[in-house]
Amino acid sequence: MSAHAFADFQDLLMLGPDGDEAAVAAVRQREARLTKPAGSLGRMEELVEFLARWQGKSEPTMDDPMVAIFAANHGVTDQGVSAYPREVTQQMVNNFTRGGAAISQICALHEINLRVFELALDVPTGDITVVPAMDERTCAATIAYGMEAIAGDVDLLCIGEMGIGNTTVAAAIYAALYGGSGADWVGRGTGLDDAGLARKADAVDRALQRHAGRLDSPLAILAHLGGREIAAMLGAIIATRHQKVPVIVDGFVATAAAAIAHAVNPAAIDHCLFAHVSAEGGHDKALERMGANGLLDLGMRLGEGSGAALAAILCKTALHLHKNMATFDEASVSEKSD
Amino acid sequence: MSAHAFADFQDLLMLGPDGDEAAVAAVRQREARLTKPAGSLGRMEELVEFLARWQGKSEPTMDDPMVAIFAANHGVTDQGVSAYPREVTQQMVNNFTRGGAAISQICALHEINLRVFELALDVPTGDITVVPAMDERTCAATIAYGMEAIAGDVDLLCIGEMGIGNTTVAAAIYAALYGGSGADWVGRGTGLDDAGLARKADAVDRALQRHAGRLDSPLAILAHLGGREIAAMLGAIIATRHQKVPVIVDGFVATAAAAIAHAVNPAAIDHCLFAHVSAEGGHDKALERMGANGLLDLGMRLGEGSGAALAAILCKTALHLHKNMATFDEASVSEKSD
Repeated sequence: MSAHAFADFQDLLMLGPDGDEAAVAAVRQREARLTKPAGSLGRMEELVEFLARWQGKSEPTMDDPMVAIFAANHGVTDQGVSAYPREVTQQMVNNFTRGGAAISQICALHEINLRVFELALDVPTGDITVVPAMDERTCAATIAYGMEAIAGDVDLLCIGEMGIGNTTVAAAIYAALYGGSGADWVGRGTGLDDAGLARKADAVDRALQRHAGRLDSPLAILAHLGGREIAAMLGAIIATRHQKVPVIVDGFVATAAAAIAHAVNPAAIDHCLFAHVSAEGGHDKALERMGANGLLDLGMRLGEGSGAALAAILCKTALHLHKNMATFDEASVSEKSD
Repeated sequence: MSAHAFADFQDLLMLGPDGDEAAVAAVRQREARLTKPAGSLGRMEELVEFLARWQGKSEPTMDDPMVAIFAANHGVTDQGVSAYPREVTQQMVNNFTRGGAAISQICALHEINLRVFELALDVPTGDITVVPAMDERTCAATIAYGMEAIAGDVDLLCIGEMGIGNTTVAAAIYAALYGGSGADWVGRGTGLDDAGLARKADAVDRALQRHAGRLDSPLAILAHLGGREIAAMLGAIIATRHQKVPVIVDGFVATAAAAIAHAVNPAAIDHCLFAHVSAEGGHDKALERMGANGLLDLGMRLGEGSGAALAAILCKTALHLHKNMATFDEASVSEKSD
């Protein structure tokens, strides 16, 4: 597989615009006037700076936050790597749009837009223990689809996913990028027992062996071992950078898309915030490899953008404070003595 | 100082009712039917169980969450232990009620009630490096005040505080309860420089030395080294247990009230959730001594109930999911295969 169809994406990942440090400076200037000790809101203050830096706005907004869920199916489920049958992907997509899922209710309560992108659910990717997940053309087209999907008035994008079997392919991506065997990266997903966990680790090992020698670039790893939702999330990560939209990355599977981008160019994910440390598999190790910290650590492993949406609530709250708190002058509060 | 006036509080701390495990079982039964893998919402699921257990309701509520801020002044500020002058306590109390403070805006955005209790701001406690903070009678009356303060329709109480100088007295309480010197427990509070930090540690050491031999019970430690807001928060912790109101404890200073209760009877704070790990001083070590985990770890050190209110948002979100998500049957989602 040549890297030809991927050249444009490689370029885009190398050429993302820098953050707007003037916008950050403006935010810090106001932050210093608010009635609280400097720095005392900790990472809440960083969230406002994050919005300013990547929106390029000295007065950042959260008027149109969106959770985008990318859904896909996976041939590797033939290997008995999931506790749930493949049809659950479509059923959960229906549940998202009807309002019954966790992410639907988080978004409803906190006024976050929710969009679900179905990626050919009736055409699972190839079983990675036997064949490549996607050919290069399909992979490239799916990245391009992800780039288009989030066009429009979005000022904060949360990326999440749904796909029975996709913690297996994400684990395979981590193993290919960072080394180690299947057992180092897989988790119980939707609730595997010990035997299922062993099958899952073995499936990753066989996939790595099957495609050895052809995993010579991050995008080749994505095509051989990945899934459509991961390719689309990579596209979303690429496009948002060029459209000045900050991104919150959800958990174990969404982070695999960020890991592909990071492997091409570590700076390509500077506009991405990692929502949380998932309880799934080696998510903590993957974050560590990228030098990233999860904002939350709540033992969650649901996917569907749920962790990202919780982080978005904190962003929304942090921005509300930044915009609405009184300054020392306004509140007639004495300032620091020294 | 005899323990006489404190005997009633000791009894109340020993005799708190147990949690309602039947209510928890009912919550778990519903939780297992919701369209998500079992346990996949992690600590969000525990939050719903926490509400059920301590409200004693199989269908827990968050109709009347409240942040209570207890504000007090401290004689130890004469020792140059704070970066801000004492009058800031009253100024911030005004700011809370006028809506300019961080906690005001968190509560406004997320529809959490906010009440501020001023505890004789014009009568600072004694300078603990010289005299006891409070006599036994004042301390007991303030605990009793805290017990009364939160009466009414509250189904979740967040306890927070405001008081220039109160990270010094909280550090002194931790040192008295858990050992170590001032340097082991103090932090920079509202923004001390190195010299101020050294003065603060020294003030704690001198206070411990001054009252050595009279710190023979947790309540004696509170009276000699504490503050009115800490005594009132202890009262709130006591009363809520008997009124079936779960509590979220804010940061470094609020945790000192919980530590006093815990030292009398570790089970007395079973209805308390620790909102976060504060960046202030030895908060992480204090939590560790109590075997507690902070829900969030955002590097915050503001006080005024701000961390507790963020945790309350997660509680509210978790309960909303629990009440509004679809079950497998309702959503026609296939269940786990094994």
